[in-house]
Amino acid sequence: MPIFPGDPTPKFESVLNLERDNVNVSRITLGTHTGTHVDSQKHFITNGVGIEKESLSKFIGEAVVMDFSNKTRGDGITSYDLDNYSSLIVPNDIILLYTGTSDYWYDDYMDKVGKKFTYLDPSAAKWILSHKIKSIGIDTFSVEKYGSKEALTHKKLLGSGIGIIENLNSNLRQFVGRRVFLVCLPLALKELDGSPARAIIFDILD
Amino acid sequence: MPIFPGDPTPKFESVLNLERDNVNVSRITLGTHTGTHVDSQKHFITNGVGIEKESLSKFIGEAVVMDFSNKTRGDGITSYDLDNYSSLIVPNDIILLYTGTSDYWYDDYMDKVGKKFTYLDPSAAKWILSHKIKSIGIDTFSVEKYGSKEALTHKKLLGSGIGIIENLNSNLRQFVGRRVFLVCLPLALKELDGSPARAIIFDILD
Repeated sequence: MPIFPGDPTPKFESVLNLERDNVNVSRITLGTHTGTHVDSQKHFITNGVGIEKESLSKFIGEAVVMDFSNKTRGDGITSYDLDNYSSLIVPNDIILLYTGTSDYWYDDYMDKVGKKFTYLDPSAAKWILSHKIKSIGIDTFSVEKYGSKEALTHKKLLGSGIGIIENLNSNLRQFVGRRVFLVCLPLALKELDGSPARAIIFDILD
Repeated sequence: MPIFPGDPTPKFESVLNLERDNVNVSRITLGTHTGTHVDSQKHFITNGVGIEKESLSKFIGEAVVMDFSNKTRGDGITSYDLDNYSSLIVPNDIILLYTGTSDYWYDDYMDKVGKKFTYLDPSAAKWILSHKIKSIGIDTFSVEKYGSKEALTHKKLLGSGIGIIENLNSNLRQFVGRRVFLVCLPLALKELDGSPARAIIFDILD
């Protein structure tokens, strides 16, 4: 997986070894926003809640998977882009945004995509609020434009209690245009600004 | 949460700070078997699969929650103990074993429980195989007796493809005697011997 510039470098070290110690045990060193992860309010909000207090019900439920792989990389998804999906969503839905930049994860992400990943324009954050979406997921580093100091999208979403899942992987592509059931579970890490999470999608059969 | 003797000490460090850097980001340092976690085959099996290859379907499904809080701490749960629940289970079930030692997590675990936690006797591992249980969860450090060199219970279960969830917390107590629906999702950490995981239980309504 690619690492956001400035985030800690992940490390996975053997601590106990099956041949020597009769057991394999490892030490994981990982940033809170590395790989697929959930942001807590604390990521951008003063006195915001830590990840252990984010309600899991935001990250479990029906989700509409939207295809924005036709956007130019580096551009923001706007409220107008989301309007194309208005008829498909109902209040309390989750929306999952496939941008296609996750397709480069395993090879040459930093060459081909790097800081030019598709993000969520602040107008999209307003749209998400007004449509009563409970959380959003995206297959890029961040919902925010790279280098933004104001972090308007994060602040609008987190400040309004809307969940944010970032760095979903390219498995998302298989589900574009469909309504699915998402379960995404961050670790309950006390007072932290986010946590790596495993996300799974279930088919909804008609 | 208590830390198994010899396991890495968890650390949670601030890397970027909201006041200074406009964002909170942290570094997590955590053992693969610390807190609620899933073992992969690689924990005890030479050439066993890593946690990213353990099928999630083992950790999602109907589960029977069994009460062994009446066992003397430090004793093993045997096949005879499990026989009391034979009529409640069907093939492909998960079983979740509440021993009560998790009730001491937040206070004085190492004083009151320490190395004397309830574990799974190798006879119980055989029972689990013969009853076609797909995975087991327990609210103790380990399914193994403390200090066991042979690790017969782990090797029997992992070697047979049966999932192991350890260090479930004392929320499990609320569900004793009931059939519930479990979702437990470890992180997809490449070739590792285990991973911290978030576990949730859904009610099954009649």
